[in-house]
Amino acid sequence: MRLDAASARQRFAGVRVARLATAGPDGRPHVVPFTFALGSAPGPVQDSPVRASPVQNSLGDCIYSAADFKPKSSTDLRRLRNIRANPRVAALADHYEDDWGRLWWVRADGRAAILDDPAAMALALALLAGRYPQYRDQPPGGPVISIRVTRWTGWAARPA
Amino acid sequence: MRLDAASARQRFAGVRVARLATAGPDGRPHVVPFTFALGSAPGPVQDSPVRASPVQNSLGDCIYSAADFKPKSSTDLRRLRNIRANPRVAALADHYEDDWGRLWWVRADGRAAILDDPAAMALALALLAGRYPQYRDQPPGGPVISIRVTRWTGWAARPA
Repeated sequence: MRLDAASARQRFAGVRVARLATAGPDGRPHVVPFTFALGSAPGPVQDSPVRASPVQNSLGDCIYSAADFKPKSSTDLRRLRNIRANPRVAALADHYEDDWGRLWWVRADGRAAILDDPAAMALALALLAGRYPQYRDQPPGGPVISIRVTRWTGWAARPA
Repeated sequence: MRLDAASARQRFAGVRVARLATAGPDGRPHVVPFTFALGSAPGPVQDSPVRASPVQNSLGDCIYSAADFKPKSSTDLRRLRNIRANPRVAALADHYEDDWGRLWWVRADGRAAILDDPAAMALALALLAGRYPQYRDQPPGGPVISIRVTRWTGWAARPA
């Protein structure tokens, strides 16, 4: 069964890890697992008071992640280089088990940006710390990526 | 810790599902979960007798998958369109758990092709049926994708 956008987003929000696909200027795809939090799109707080609270929009249309202390090959990560050259990305959440009657997946297509606004970064880091205790003990220091989701798609073998 | 190619391939071979990233001619990345089997690269049996046996090269450098009966949006799958336009792909296997000391991932970068040679397709389908009982009951009917892996990379928080 096809999932509507709301169901797709809700399933996505429930997983602890997703996979981020980017493509370089040479068209070469890249994919990494990543931890994330959903929230509202970044923007000045005065534009939208609700954005001042990181918890109120936990099912928003923006996916945040951060380069963190988990080992990386380089601080100049390929995902970041790719995003700078080509902001179109796809993020995947899926569930697998040997009973294929329980499979599902959700894909979020969108546009990524590397945040540099301190308020937007603080919102993203607060959302991430809210989801992952590891980030409360050791906040991620690296660049923060935001993905504005333009399309949620997915399917499930059966209703949730 | 970085994984060498052999360790990376071995970990990849042990998971039941991986994720396939492709990119279209417009540079838009796409990513889907997929079931797969590792084997040797397809080729005429007479070129290499060992290729006649699908089991002897179960840790080869070719990843096979097939469009199967799991629901798809279309028989003209976007992954197939992308591969026809741009054969460069990346496949990811990863392990997540809340203990981040046990995380690992492996990425296989390579070139994909859609098989049309009946012998190569039969080899791939035999490998897939060997891994997934579901394929023995209901063989995949769709096109078979082979990915010749040109690079295995990965890391693990700790040795296996």
